[in-house]
Amino acid sequence: MKKYCFGVDIGGTTVKIGLFDETGNVLDKWEIPTRTEEEGKNILPDIAKSLSGKLEEKQISREAVTGVGLGAPGPIDKNGIVHKAVNLGWGVFSIKDILEELCGLPVRAGNDANVAALGEMWKGGGQGYRNLVLVTLGTGVGGGVIVNGETLSGSIGAGGEIGHIHIQDGEEDICGCGNHGCLEQYASATGIVRLAKRRLKATDEESVLRGSEVSAKAVFDAVKAGDEVAIQIAEEFGEYLGKGLAAVATVVNPEAFVIGGGVSKAGEILFSFVEKNYKKYVFHGSRDAVFRLATLGNDAGIYGAAKLILK
Amino acid sequence: MKKYCFGVDIGGTTVKIGLFDETGNVLDKWEIPTRTEEEGKNILPDIAKSLSGKLEEKQISREAVTGVGLGAPGPIDKNGIVHKAVNLGWGVFSIKDILEELCGLPVRAGNDANVAALGEMWKGGGQGYRNLVLVTLGTGVGGGVIVNGETLSGSIGAGGEIGHIHIQDGEEDICGCGNHGCLEQYASATGIVRLAKRRLKATDEESVLRGSEVSAKAVFDAVKAGDEVAIQIAEEFGEYLGKGLAAVATVVNPEAFVIGGGVSKAGEILFSFVEKNYKKYVFHGSRDAVFRLATLGNDAGIYGAAKLILK
Repeated sequence: MKKYCFGVDIGGTTVKIGLFDETGNVLDKWEIPTRTEEEGKNILPDIAKSLSGKLEEKQISREAVTGVGLGAPGPIDKNGIVHKAVNLGWGVFSIKDILEELCGLPVRAGNDANVAALGEMWKGGGQGYRNLVLVTLGTGVGGGVIVNGETLSGSIGAGGEIGHIHIQDGEEDICGCGNHGCLEQYASATGIVRLAKRRLKATDEESVLRGSEVSAKAVFDAVKAGDEVAIQIAEEFGEYLGKGLAAVATVVNPEAFVIGGGVSKAGEILFSFVEKNYKKYVFHGSRDAVFRLATLGNDAGIYGAAKLILK
Repeated sequence: MKKYCFGVDIGGTTVKIGLFDETGNVLDKWEIPTRTEEEGKNILPDIAKSLSGKLEEKQISREAVTGVGLGAPGPIDKNGIVHKAVNLGWGVFSIKDILEELCGLPVRAGNDANVAALGEMWKGGGQGYRNLVLVTLGTGVGGGVIVNGETLSGSIGAGGEIGHIHIQDGEEDICGCGNHGCLEQYASATGIVRLAKRRLKATDEESVLRGSEVSAKAVFDAVKAGDEVAIQIAEEFGEYLGKGLAAVATVVNPEAFVIGGGVSKAGEILFSFVEKNYKKYVFHGSRDAVFRLATLGNDAGIYGAAKLILK
């Protein structure tokens, strides 16, 4: 009888792995390093070895394991083929085929952001919704779109890249993706710092943000303390993010947005800046989408990966 | 043995109906008026009566019919529930349940634009693709999104409303949806006329467009004749549409865009204005999407409706 599955979340520096029971409880959770050298050729063998070791340690037979779900940072299509994952050194190949061969278990794979969205839907801030968008506000802006309970991968797994919606003409700074004026340049932690520096330069107003290193956290702490300049910065952030999420909703009509990533630690105060702009720009059929905070943090990936298998 | 199905496309003035064989050939095709009075209460009974009449005329038994597929102008979710179709006078109810009761056949329903996209994928300009976006450039800008061969309806069927992506700040004219700066205000036939009037007013340059009624057709005819002002108008149209479709692709990562509606009669010359802007603004993972012309015209809806049943 199948009683277990693995959820694997490959990051640029570590691979997070969880052993789950069939109802989605985490029985064990650990990490191994991500060895990206030599075009990342060791990553999947390292994972297979770690899984085998865990089965041996726990005295679990392969027959009792439903399979291995896996999320990785790059476009991965429905068939488990990765289409270049730059951060891992990977080109184009079938993760599914190779890892199945290596570990002797069924494998399903997806883009890490989409998989994390599945995790938040299942066990996190998105519980109760089957059409949602996970928005990860970290160093960049990541996105995962769930439609009718399934991840939207797109034709080559590049769906849900909402951080790269063009949102501002005339931007001179370049985005990590090579374009100019992407949502990520205004709504990520880095983007908020950019907005803050520009605003502090443009005004002479007093602000607690002057004279020390500006961070997204510092901005929202200052907002909570009533700092006027910080509030202006947050308003600008909210205008960009609200407008971007409105574009997303006009396409996929979600029930909920789940906001995660480092910036979301500011809490529900974020929503007061984003939601009013969202409602201003969105098509009326999507105006009632709700905003929720992500709750799984760095574990969203392993939960979602497990869900790829347990569905 | 099931040998037939019906495809029904409800429009604001007529209902188009097709009788199909199981491989998707149209055996017969006709129209009835759409009676929108009294909150559209006659529309479904009129359809049921017309289908019964056709079965009798052709001496086909109900047992030989797989079902009835239906597209209608409004948000319709996966379960066949319409969430207000203003043009038909409809509120919220189950089209599926009522029409099944009326005609004694299985029914599946969807939003007309999404259903038309399914038609173009199956028998039209989108053949060979399973991830595509139909863009209908008519009086408005309609959209239908297909993901892995299925329509993307969204939570209440308001998915794919790409004409209402906010694309321009500071627009003073109001869109039909109540917002300002929607894609539809620049890329529909009506939108192109607006762009043309603004451009003709802003410049003194000679143009064949001066002195007569401007239409989207006149603009693209003038483009083909090398008229400089018309080319500027088309460039502006292409900038808006390219940017809007880039936002759509960043979310759903399609293989193809299929362009239909009255404006698409201008032909592939449209692509020269749209595609370069699309490539400029889109996330690199979606840069290779191809552009195709829709080929089914007003029949896309009945084909797609039939496909809802024959899938």
